Amino acid sequence: MKKKRFSIIVTIVTNFVLLVITANTFAQEPARPAAAPAARPSFRMAPRIVSPEILPDSRVTFRIYSKDTSRISLSGEWQAGFGASEALVRNDTGLYSLTVGPLKPELYAYTFTIDGVRTIDPGNTQVRRDGSNYQSYFIIPGPESDLYFHKNDVPHGTVTKIWYKSEVLGFQRRVYIYTPAGYENGTQKYPVFYLLHGAGGDEDAWTNMGRTAQIMDNLIAQGKSIPMIVVMTNGNANQAGAQNEVPPLPATGEQGMAAYQRYAGKFEEHLVKDVVPFIEKNFRSLTGKDNRAIAGLSMGGAHTQTITNNNPGMFSYIGVYSMGIMSMGPQNQDAAKLEQERITKLTALKDSGYKLYWIACGKDDFVYKGVITLRETLDKVGLKYIYRESTGGHTWANWRIYLSEFAPMLFR
Amino acid sequence: MKKKRFSIIVTIVTNFVLLVITANTFAQEPARPAAAPAARPSFRMAPRIVSPEILPDSRVTFRIYSKDTSRISLSGEWQAGFGASEALVRNDTGLYSLTVGPLKPELYAYTFTIDGVRTIDPGNTQVRRDGSNYQSYFIIPGPESDLYFHKNDVPHGTVTKIWYKSEVLGFQRRVYIYTPAGYENGTQKYPVFYLLHGAGGDEDAWTNMGRTAQIMDNLIAQGKSIPMIVVMTNGNANQAGAQNEVPPLPATGEQGMAAYQRYAGKFEEHLVKDVVPFIEKNFRSLTGKDNRAIAGLSMGGAHTQTITNNNPGMFSYIGVYSMGIMSMGPQNQDAAKLEQERITKLTALKDSGYKLYWIACGKDDFVYKGVITLRETLDKVGLKYIYRESTGGHTWANWRIYLSEFAPMLFR
Repeated sequence: MKKKRFSIIVTIVTNFVLLVITANTFAQEPARPAAAPAARPSFRMAPRIVSPEILPDSRVTFRIYSKDTSRISLSGEWQAGFGASEALVRNDTGLYSLTVGPLKPELYAYTFTIDGVRTIDPGNTQVRRDGSNYQSYFIIPGPESDLYFHKNDVPHGTVTKIWYKSEVLGFQRRVYIYTPAGYENGTQKYPVFYLLHGAGGDEDAWTNMGRTAQIMDNLIAQGKSIPMIVVMTNGNANQAGAQNEVPPLPATGEQGMAAYQRYAGKFEEHLVKDVVPFIEKNFRSLTGKDNRAIAGLSMGGAHTQTITNNNPGMFSYIGVYSMGIMSMGPQNQDAAKLEQERITKLTALKDSGYKLYWIACGKDDFVYKGVITLRETLDKVGLKYIYRESTGGHTWANWRIYLSEFAPMLFR
Repeated sequence: MKKKRFSIIVTIVTNFVLLVITANTFAQEPARPAAAPAARPSFRMAPRIVSPEILPDSRVTFRIYSKDTSRISLSGEWQAGFGASEALVRNDTGLYSLTVGPLKPELYAYTFTIDGVRTIDPGNTQVRRDGSNYQSYFIIPGPESDLYFHKNDVPHGTVTKIWYKSEVLGFQRRVYIYTPAGYENGTQKYPVFYLLHGAGGDEDAWTNMGRTAQIMDNLIAQGKSIPMIVVMTNGNANQAGAQNEVPPLPATGEQGMAAYQRYAGKFEEHLVKDVVPFIEKNFRSLTGKDNRAIAGLSMGGAHTQTITNNNPGMFSYIGVYSMGIMSMGPQNQDAAKLEQERITKLTALKDSGYKLYWIACGKDDFVYKGVITLRETLDKVGLKYIYRESTGGHTWANWRIYLSEFAPMLFR
């Protein structure tokens, strides 16, 4: 607090622009060293701890200062296995540091564990929210991560947080809309891509974890995707909006099956009856199935299947990321009946005419068997699809890749 | 990570909606106890640590679990003095806790210090960014904080993150726009309020720290403000957008005065030449001075003075929050000349016709003397103003209050 007040006074009195640019975590610029060797103007702050510092060879140095800590460790998405961590090493001034890698080009989230408490890196302004957890992150530059960077010289689309009334659910809900660069001052209509998140996520997930705005900006600027509107809904039918900004709805008092029944299938129904009409009324949208795409990851892949199975002729472009047909478990003895219903619906979907049914899954994903079942079912129906098998598992790294590959195939 | 994978599997296999609602930090609902006494369905997660828990008497309990920590303390905005903190007390299971208050209704930010490392509360999803620092926060409900809550039963405006080309600065910049509920499906034009942040802030500050969307939603719903567009710019002329999402521009290589000269006064010029025309072209805006308001806090209050002094007849509603006329220090010996220039400009502003010149400052603010100088100068010119003196200092608590009081006076 003292430092901040000092900084404000300095700014006012000298009327100087403080050219303290936090270039280090963005990697387009060479990182500043932890202590700048050149003489600095006297009004500048003491050098900040630089963490993470991305080195030219794609190794990464993490730093944190603490004189009162026994142990600081680092957990990052590049480490193998759940719960993996590496200890930072303390020098005699209390500066802890660790260099890892080289890492391959990718966006990596990480946390520090300070004497047993997991937290973000205080030196890094790049923070993302994964459900109720906050994580620091950085991007190693390279061809595989190039679409994930915000590039200052590329036209940028707009991200709009907007509210609509759901007649199906009975309350106002928030949705994020990406509109492509040029939307505001043009008259053109655009096709619409509905992009659904997974369990634990919300309407913020695809822009925050998934880098949708950066990926779409870059794909469109490179001519790899045509300009489109991307609609990112909240797939939790019991939520008005993301838990960090929007309070929960009043409790219904229902428990168990009653609570389940209130919301079962309602997100899918409300997307068709509330969201699509809202978008097509309020945004300059092209309509008809050939101008609508839908895709989702994990739970959103299940939503996508339900929505497209129940509404043949509504979406011509369908993407199922990291989701298949899952066993319903012992509580459901009507597997044969369900299977027959699904085949009837998929046959109607096939007959309705569609342009793309795209399935993607990682080799190590725990839903892998369910994806085999989905493919076998589609084969049985004769519904043509493209299957993309990647390395890795049930991860945002894969979902960003799937978005980067799926969007260019749309509306062609 | 294990817990998350487990949760995803559970969601898929059972297809149950996990009705785990994080009601505790929002205070509209009674907080759940730290360990729920009722039997819980077997698929639920273990009880989460509830922190903060807002008690019915406006005391607040903080909790954090750590078996390996020596000391955990709490720093919060309700504490008196810079650097104040209170230690949490550890029980024999490693649960640290502390109850504070009762606190008066207000939004409070706080951090934990874990063996010397300052960090957010891992139990609280409500996190805000103050420049490069992340803080947890909560709101104590009551009349004084009522405007700061997101209310599910009130119509919500839209928050748009949009990019425009600045001809003055030569690069694309991001701006946040609040449009009132009803904007999307109407044809009405709205007056526009330009709302500027202070040093250390950016285009995200007024929605994130300042609760602008919630305040405007509630003021408009209560009939206390007329519907208007609120434009929140980035006041750092050397930035394209907020440091947590937008990389810095390439370094110019300039140092000292050259670096200063590149940007001095340019934000103010670009607001007039780039931002206002962009808004009036791309949003359904009423034009002319009686449909334009401008206000800013601290550095933004200096920007507001410069912009309105240099452009008489452009804005009829002017708000200067926590800023006055500051001494330029020894590097400027032309105080008398500057004073005369200012009086000439303020006389032109007075003669141009305006409806409101509103100055607000806290009794304990370090800019207090500068505000006296501003008022004396306006008195000399005969430019009528309203002076609002509050308790407190140079704080977001005051800036939220000033916004809540200023917006209702606009465009009447």
